[in-house]
Amino acid sequence: VIFKRITSEGLSHHSYFIADGDEAVVVDPKRDVDTYLNLAAEHNCNITKIIETHRNEDYVIGSVALKEFSDSEILHGGKLDFKYGTQIEDGTSFDLGNLRFNLLETPGHTPESITISVADKNFSNKPFLAFVGDSLFVGDTGRTDLWGDDGEAASALYESLYNKILPLGDHVILCAAHGGGSVCGGAIAKRNQSTLGYERQFNPKLQKTGKNEFVKMKNGEQHVQAPYFKLMEEWNQTGKAPVHRVPPFIDPLNLECFREKIRDNAEVIDLRPPQAFASAHIPNSYNIWQAGVPAYFGWIASLDQPVVLVLPEQSDPKKVTRLLYRIGYDNVCGYLKGGFETWQNESMEIDAFGVADTEKVKDLMKNKKAEIIDVRKPDEWEDGTIEGSHKIFLGDLENRLDDLDKGSQYITMCAVGHRGGVAASILAKSGFRNVYNYLGGYTAWKQHHA
Amino acid sequence: VIFKRITSEGLSHHSYFIADGDEAVVVDPKRDVDTYLNLAAEHNCNITKIIETHRNEDYVIGSVALKEFSDSEILHGGKLDFKYGTQIEDGTSFDLGNLRFNLLETPGHTPESITISVADKNFSNKPFLAFVGDSLFVGDTGRTDLWGDDGEAASALYESLYNKILPLGDHVILCAAHGGGSVCGGAIAKRNQSTLGYERQFNPKLQKTGKNEFVKMKNGEQHVQAPYFKLMEEWNQTGKAPVHRVPPFIDPLNLECFREKIRDNAEVIDLRPPQAFASAHIPNSYNIWQAGVPAYFGWIASLDQPVVLVLPEQSDPKKVTRLLYRIGYDNVCGYLKGGFETWQNESMEIDAFGVADTEKVKDLMKNKKAEIIDVRKPDEWEDGTIEGSHKIFLGDLENRLDDLDKGSQYITMCAVGHRGGVAASILAKSGFRNVYNYLGGYTAWKQHHA
Amino acid sequence: VIFKRITSEGLSHHSYFIADGDEAVVVDPKRDVDTYLNLAAEHNCNITKIIETHRNEDYVIGSVALKEFSDSEILHGGKLDFKYGTQIEDGTSFDLGNLRFNLLETPGHTPESITISVADKNFSNKPFLAFVGDSLFVGDTGRTDLWGDDGEAASALYESLYNKILPLGDHVILCAAHGGGSVCGGAIAKRNQSTLGYERQFNPKLQKTGKNEFVKMKNGEQHVQAPYFKLMEEWNQTGKAPVHRVPPFIDPLNLECFREKIRDNAEVIDLRPPQAFASAHIPNSYNIWQAGVPAYFGWIASLDQPVVLVLPEQSDPKKVTRLLYRIGYDNVCGYLKGGFETWQNESMEIDAFGVADTEKVKDLMKNKKAEIIDVRKPDEWEDGTIEGSHKIFLGDLENRLDDLDKGSQYITMCAVGHRGGVAASILAKSGFRNVYNYLGGYTAWKQHHA
Amino acid sequence: VIFKRITSEGLSHHSYFIADGDEAVVVDPKRDVDTYLNLAAEHNCNITKIIETHRNEDYVIGSVALKEFSDSEILHGGKLDFKYGTQIEDGTSFDLGNLRFNLLETPGHTPESITISVADKNFSNKPFLAFVGDSLFVGDTGRTDLWGDDGEAASALYESLYNKILPLGDHVILCAAHGGGSVCGGAIAKRNQSTLGYERQFNPKLQKTGKNEFVKMKNGEQHVQAPYFKLMEEWNQTGKAPVHRVPPFIDPLNLECFREKIRDNAEVIDLRPPQAFASAHIPNSYNIWQAGVPAYFGWIASLDQPVVLVLPEQSDPKKVTRLLYRIGYDNVCGYLKGGFETWQNESMEIDAFGVADTEKVKDLMKNKKAEIIDVRKPDEWEDGTIEGSHKIFLGDLENRLDDLDKGSQYITMCAVGHRGGVAASILAKSGFRNVYNYLGGYTAWKQHHA
Repeated sequence: VIFKRITSEGLSHHSYFIADGDEAVVVDPKRDVDTYLNLAAEHNCNITKIIETHRNEDYVIGSVALKEFSDSEILHGGKLDFKYGTQIEDGTSFDLGNLRFNLLETPGHTPESITISVADKNFSNKPFLAFVGDSLFVGDTGRTDLWGDDGEAASALYESLYNKILPLGDHVILCAAHGGGSVCGGAIAKRNQSTLGYERQFNPKLQKTGKNEFVKMKNGEQHVQAPYFKLMEEWNQTGKAPVHRVPPFIDPLNLECFREKIRDNAEVIDLRPPQAFASAHIPNSYNIWQAGVPAYFGWIASLDQPVVLVLPEQSDPKKVTRLLYRIGYDNVCGYLKGGFETWQNESMEIDAFGVADTEKVKDLMKNKKAEIIDVRKPDEWEDGTIEGSHKIFLGDLENRLDDLDKGSQYITMCAVGHRGGVAASILAKSGFRNVYNYLGGYTAWKQHHA
Repeated sequence: VIFKRITSEGLSHHSYFIADGDEAVVVDPKRDVDTYLNLAAEHNCNITKIIETHRNEDYVIGSVALKEFSDSEILHGGKLDFKYGTQIEDGTSFDLGNLRFNLLETPGHTPESITISVADKNFSNKPFLAFVGDSLFVGDTGRTDLWGDDGEAASALYESLYNKILPLGDHVILCAAHGGGSVCGGAIAKRNQSTLGYERQFNPKLQKTGKNEFVKMKNGEQHVQAPYFKLMEEWNQTGKAPVHRVPPFIDPLNLECFREKIRDNAEVIDLRPPQAFASAHIPNSYNIWQAGVPAYFGWIASLDQPVVLVLPEQSDPKKVTRLLYRIGYDNVCGYLKGGFETWQNESMEIDAFGVADTEKVKDLMKNKKAEIIDVRKPDEWEDGTIEGSHKIFLGDLENRLDDLDKGSQYITMCAVGHRGGVAASILAKSGFRNVYNYLGGYTAWKQHHA
Repeated sequence: VIFKRITSEGLSHHSYFIADGDEAVVVDPKRDVDTYLNLAAEHNCNITKIIETHRNEDYVIGSVALKEFSDSEILHGGKLDFKYGTQIEDGTSFDLGNLRFNLLETPGHTPESITISVADKNFSNKPFLAFVGDSLFVGDTGRTDLWGDDGEAASALYESLYNKILPLGDHVILCAAHGGGSVCGGAIAKRNQSTLGYERQFNPKLQKTGKNEFVKMKNGEQHVQAPYFKLMEEWNQTGKAPVHRVPPFIDPLNLECFREKIRDNAEVIDLRPPQAFASAHIPNSYNIWQAGVPAYFGWIASLDQPVVLVLPEQSDPKKVTRLLYRIGYDNVCGYLKGGFETWQNESMEIDAFGVADTEKVKDLMKNKKAEIIDVRKPDEWEDGTIEGSHKIFLGDLENRLDDLDKGSQYITMCAVGHRGGVAASILAKSGFRNVYNYLGGYTAWKQHHA
Repeated sequence: VIFKRITSEGLSHHSYFIADGDEAVVVDPKRDVDTYLNLAAEHNCNITKIIETHRNEDYVIGSVALKEFSDSEILHGGKLDFKYGTQIEDGTSFDLGNLRFNLLETPGHTPESITISVADKNFSNKPFLAFVGDSLFVGDTGRTDLWGDDGEAASALYESLYNKILPLGDHVILCAAHGGGSVCGGAIAKRNQSTLGYERQFNPKLQKTGKNEFVKMKNGEQHVQAPYFKLMEEWNQTGKAPVHRVPPFIDPLNLECFREKIRDNAEVIDLRPPQAFASAHIPNSYNIWQAGVPAYFGWIASLDQPVVLVLPEQSDPKKVTRLLYRIGYDNVCGYLKGGFETWQNESMEIDAFGVADTEKVKDLMKNKKAEIIDVRKPDEWEDGTIEGSHKIFLGDLENRLDDLDKGSQYITMCAVGHRGGVAASILAKSGFRNVYNYLGGYTAWKQHHA
């Protein structure tokens, strides 16, 4: 039995490759499917089944692409008619070598969510492992705000968890579709190893006194939905996303071509760290630190206009290609060859804004001269913030600029300084001239005030 | 939390690398420790603890080498005084980031065997995972024939399993030191994913009615001990094995140098597949197919004399280097550059013996002209054999040649034909002239007679 | 300046990637073009020009595929109208960064052959390097038998060499399209480093007294043309070969599927070494040792029927995929998972033939009982052969079986024993029962008789 | 023949691996010798000879280490007694497979410099290739300021070039020990492909009218010698550098350990790009952008004190390890895990200085308020500078701080902004408070004023 967990960095999305004998199953494949094709070749087996545990919102599904390059069948839950693959019913099972896969309908995160349990027939028909999609995570439970009607979703999730998933047995290994850091669950553990029994006992979300309390808790959760989710939804339910065996590389552009793209209305997104961006950047560019691409590109970047990139010095364009391909940004049409230095060495205009450490933040705030904008997520505000801060989630900032005053001084703040840099770049791009990004953010603040 | 299972192919030995925050622990490291050093560098952490779950018999332990190249401490069970590391007592615990490691004495496989449970303090002090060494496997239990006094070992193992390990909880993930194919357990599953709860319910060795039946079963098991185990035992209890950051490569030898080594009494071991060896090989050479090196080299090859190799065409000498380094064959001093063809193209003398498919085997056996030698392991004989076969385990063959007649015709047989090839090479080397290796072996035979 | 020579193993075909500034040129790309796309991504440049020095006969050209995945232009010689790309005239030049490329028509190997010289404008407009295609090799000159009318080709080649190529200057680095071992030149050196000046002085083919002697020599050369050359010719002049960014993998087949393919008329080609094949193989299968695939698959394997493979034990199917993809064998539809052992373990019928070392060959030949078939190439026969041998080039053997007698004993012989194995497999497949492959071949024979 | 050029990035140092038959020679190995050992293993050959073309000044030689891990001999020129290896005389030759190596004494760069020509005996005893060490480069000639007595060196170099090296023939391929960007020659081309004939005709340094003019030119060249050259000299003439098969990794340090190192007097060197460093850095740290490590670390970093690093976000510590290992910085004892963010998130004190684009530079210079410090190399000043600049080479800056006024405003300038960042960090560390690094540097300036 070959078992591999494949994680899409940043999205913290887990897909799985499991093979026995001549055949392999892939669960929840990402869009750059060469990973699975290479695994199949390496292990001398054919991918024959692909399972989508649910419609996915945060990345482009890979099942359609994977089917294109293998002789396989796509299976998904029966409660929603994807325009591809086969709808399967509760209780459907199939064999793969000596493994038996059994599919359970487990609505909650979405109506068509399913769970797949896997048994080793050499030992028992009882499962040793379950793929639960976004129903259950290590330390958390699936979001119920994407179903449409909240109350029903939470209630359905409760039933699925307590009547279908947990009854598979304490001994069953948990394979969730997301890990720590995903937007699909706010409190997922940083550890991927767990079992249904461990979660039953120690997952805080499963310690409620009953269904009512559970539903109330779920309905009280605050989640954010990035704008690019809409394209994901459309692509993932229709299977229309463009398909490639390996993602096409993003092209390097010399300065001349890069500027031409800008003249043709391309957005510039600069993937350097916030410290570098602050001191020198291309006018009108956004800043998203590279590791933040999977989680924040979809909040900031246009899906309609062309987009061009400025990469950090040690960055590998092939890696960035994959990050963007997974979230559907096929409109990213190039990066500046040589990076920001190409720009500066040609004596092009350079913009800047400020950064501040805790001492400087305090100084700026004296006499109310500067105001804090806390761009963290609503659930992070619950841990506290600096008194008097404007609470505007990063994803909402561009739409709420009218609430702010271009003539004032602002300090952008997040947990450590990355998202603060994105926020500061949004402000600077919109004509705010007195902007500071708080390096260290609320994490640093708490060092002094906790 | 970074969690990696590292498997030594062929030995089916699992070691583990687990890191949280700045630090990493390695459990049961193999001798080529660059694997762990690279993992630590890749994940920006320092290896600070190394744990030997027990003295190991089937490979050279890597803890001494790993300590040499990191700033770490070696821990092992308190019931045996290794000449290195720190003996720890039942109940000792330490933290690594947010993980808590707790060490339990679980004698049985050996007196000093320990189990390490790991908890995630963010959720609970109860463990989510346990490193059990050779106490428990997926689908099997540890050997009890290496302790010294069988009865006591099996009894101790029973107590360790039922009073220490299984009580950790059904929900605990099982991390054993060996997987399917290891000589350290005859019936280990080919799947690495399991939990204590799954084993409690479905491991056939844990379904006995009580301690007596368990002990009886264990004492009835038949296990083999390869001669090289003695060197492993000595090295692993003293920590004397030569240490390198990466294994030194085995040298290519031109024909002249290769022949000089032979004149200087080097053994020749040919790693080609049995079909190739049968039709043409260097006189007086042994045959061990390459994938069989970890499991069978230690039965056949000398640890005292120099050894030289003939490699298959697509073989990577760097890979073979690691296989041999792990089992202590530092006396392998070269391989013939260009492989067997170098030998044949210089018109050197070539030896051969026969192969046979099922039809030919039947033909040879007619009128008792040829006799079968079944070289499988004692536990395999229990599945049946060809009537009238000599049952001589491969590892005993060279010592039992006197029971055979050089003038007779023999057919060597194993499960599929690899070990049969080794056996045939032993006979041919000893002057038997009418030898056939049964290609397909007992697996093929059963196709016709089951 | 980035300069890379990329060699297709076995074909000994060299392609070149050369980049300066933002752009790269690829000369004579192979079909699996991901190699060049990866190089471009690694070096942050765009492939903008692709050059075919001539129509190629021994592999599928990659220019059409490469253009498909990059924003580039294909250039080739003006004397033949490929159905793709741009015909260029003598003297055309273009710049790439600070490099200047100049294209010269150098007919000889083919009418449309060109040479591209490259200058570094920072230093001089004189070239430092030349891509000469198949006009000139290290130690040899291009074949003139593929042009059509021999006399004219050799004469044209002489003019191209002496009036166009060598006059570029002794100091010019030679970049040929093939290296040692290629069928495109019989005597190419095993070293790739040379200059026009070195060749002018030391290339044996350039030491003739004048044009007449040169033409006579060229016309006296004996070259072979594999049957698959016809498909290459068709594909390479029309650009019709199927195009992929990376070659699709060959599928593993379980025994059942594999046998079904055979029932559906698939040819079986076994890539194991000749020693292994001789002692045990699938009835009716051909043997081509893996490293011989690029050079000999095209002589033996059908391009019309489906083909299935048996791979050696350490073989990487992904590597074999590339070897076959390059020579257009898109009809290879699978390989037997588990290799020959899958066959033998199911007790399927096994065939065999003999092998012989020099002593045995002499023995077999006594009293003219066995006859030698020397399957080497005509130019190899010139070095001598065993007296009385049938000289039948391997590629002609299958068509000349009527000259042989199925009741006789035959010994197949080549230089070392690989092609002898192919030949023996052809004979065995055709019903010859007394066949031996001479291991060591004429190389071994000479050890005894020189 | 296997021929590989191995380049140490940043140092632009070329070493060479050349093999034929069973054996390989390595010329001018770098210190991390696993590269060559892996090549030998990959190509199934033994390294038997190691050649040092001269004592090297800019990196730690690898010959002693390579000999330690192979069965080989070190050869070097006879005019200097290294404390290791064998001194060889003019005209010594040896064979390697079919290659013949011939060693010529070619003093000039240093007294013991040698050139090794290589012939392919299959074709001629005349060489096809020459390893010339630092005597001749593509587009430049070797430095003559390290010999001791300038006049003699330049004269000797002239004789070696014109009487020994160039006479090998126009057709000979040039293999120099350095490529473009090296400090060992100011004007080396960015292209590695050349021949003696090309250099004879087009190398600007070889176009002088005679020896006198050549000597005058050489003696007029201005070269810099980094302080770490002294250690290189000592280690390379005694062979005393610590030896490892692979370089030991630099350790990650958590903030606590990192600060403890600082308290224990460790220097902090920050490898982030200058834009990031400018806006936020650890007080008292130096800035050297990562790609500048090979060339500038040796000017700035202490060889006596411990040194700790701050790495850029996408940086691979294993790569940095090699860069530092090659130049002997075995005193680098760790890097801050998590990078600068670890510092900022703990609310530690952060320092900053300014950056400026061309407009801002002009603005700052108005009314002589700010002064430019041009830290480029003397030979770069010859291309012009901004009027009124202080010309202080970066390597001299720390010793010439007394010439500057801490109360004044300074703008550091180099060619593009990297070395300007190093310079600004030196000033900031020394208490200068009004410092700006000119992003774009003299390259940007020229856009406006040329």
